[in-house]
Amino acid sequence: MARVKFYLREGMLAPGRAVSATRAQYGEEHLHRLRLIRSLTTVAGLPLSRTRKILGILDAPEASVESMLGAAVAALSSDGDRTSGLTADRDAYPRSFAALEVLGEGYQPRMPALEQLENALAAVEEVGIPATPERLEVYGPHIRAIAEAELSGLPHDNSRAAVEYAVLGTALYEPVIAALRRLAHQTIANRDA
Amino acid sequence: MARVKFYLREGMLAPGRAVSATRAQYGEEHLHRLRLIRSLTTVAGLPLSRTRKILGILDAPEASVESMLGAAVAALSSDGDRTSGLTADRDAYPRSFAALEVLGEGYQPRMPALEQLENALAAVEEVGIPATPERLEVYGPHIRAIAEAELSGLPHDNSRAAVEYAVLGTALYEPVIAALRRLAHQTIANRDA
Repeated sequence: MARVKFYLREGMLAPGRAVSATRAQYGEEHLHRLRLIRSLTTVAGLPLSRTRKILGILDAPEASVESMLGAAVAALSSDGDRTSGLTADRDAYPRSFAALEVLGEGYQPRMPALEQLENALAAVEEVGIPATPERLEVYGPHIRAIAEAELSGLPHDNSRAAVEYAVLGTALYEPVIAALRRLAHQTIANRDA
Repeated sequence: MARVKFYLREGMLAPGRAVSATRAQYGEEHLHRLRLIRSLTTVAGLPLSRTRKILGILDAPEASVESMLGAAVAALSSDGDRTSGLTADRDAYPRSFAALEVLGEGYQPRMPALEQLENALAAVEEVGIPATPERLEVYGPHIRAIAEAELSGLPHDNSRAAVEYAVLGTALYEPVIAALRRLAHQTIANRDA
C-alpha cells in the first residue's frame, strides 16, 4: 500500500474513485497499471525515472504506434531528454558507423541504440576480441531476423497495448536470448569435449 | 597501485621479481593478467568472487579446453560451488524443459544456463508475453548459429587463451547483441512509421 501511495503521489497511477473521505476504490485498469509498473521496475530492473518516462509515452494516445514505439524503446536505455531516432554524428560513433557499413540496410543509425553499440564495441575491442566484419556478418542477419519476428507479433488494434508489448518484450527478452546463447555455448563445448 | 596490492594479497596476481626489500619488478605477463582482471571486473561487471573463480580455472592447466570452457562459462553466472554441466532436474525447471523440447538437439539441459533460462522465461510469462513454441522456433536456430560461429573462433593452440576468449566473449558480446537487436527494432519501427 505504501508503494501504491507513492505511485499516486508521483502521478504514475491515476487516483481511484473516492468512496469515503479516507477510502478509494481501484478497478481492473489500476491493477493493470500496477502490474505494468512492477514489470518495468522489478522484473526489467528499470530505474523509476525511465519507468515514469515510458508511462508518460503510454499516456499520450495521439501519437502513432510507430513513433510511440521509437520513443519507448529509446526511453528504455536513456533517462536523457535527447531526441530519440535522430541520425547521429558519424565522428562521435566511429565503431558503430564502421559496423553499420558491414551490417547493411537493416540497421540504420538511430539513437540511443547507436550509442549503446559504440560502448559495447569499444569494450570488446579493449579485451582483444573486436567485432570484425566476419563476426558482424554473422550477427547481422540473425539478429535482424529475430527483431523482425518479434515486431511482427505487435498488436495492431491498440497502440497502447503495442507499446507495452514492445517495451516489455525488448527489455525482458534480453535475458532469454542471453540464456539461450549460453545454453548453446555449453552444448557445443560439451559436444566437442 | 592499491589495486595491484589488493590483487597480490588475494592471490589473483603472482608476486613480481623482488629487486630490493621494498621493490618488485613486473613483466608482460603481469600486465596481461591485470588487464584480464580489469576486463572481467570493470568491463564485464563481474563480482570479485566470480572473477577469482575464473582466474582459478585459467590457472589449472591440466584440464581440457572444453572442460575449462564449461567451468568458466558456468562461473560467469554463478558464485556457487554447484557442479556445472550436470543435467538438471526436470521438475525444478519446467519452463526450460518445455522450451528445450521445442528447441531440439542444439540446446542440452546444462546448468547454470538452464536456471537463467527458467528465470527469464518466468519473467516474460508474468508480463503476458510468454515464449511460445512459435517464438522459440525463431530464436533457437538463429542463436544456435551465432553460438557456433563464436566458438569456431576459439584459439586451439593454447587452452588458457581459449578460455579467456570464451569467457570474455560470452560476457562482453551480450551488450553488442542487445544493442544490435535494439537498432534493428528501431530501424523496423521507423520503416513501418
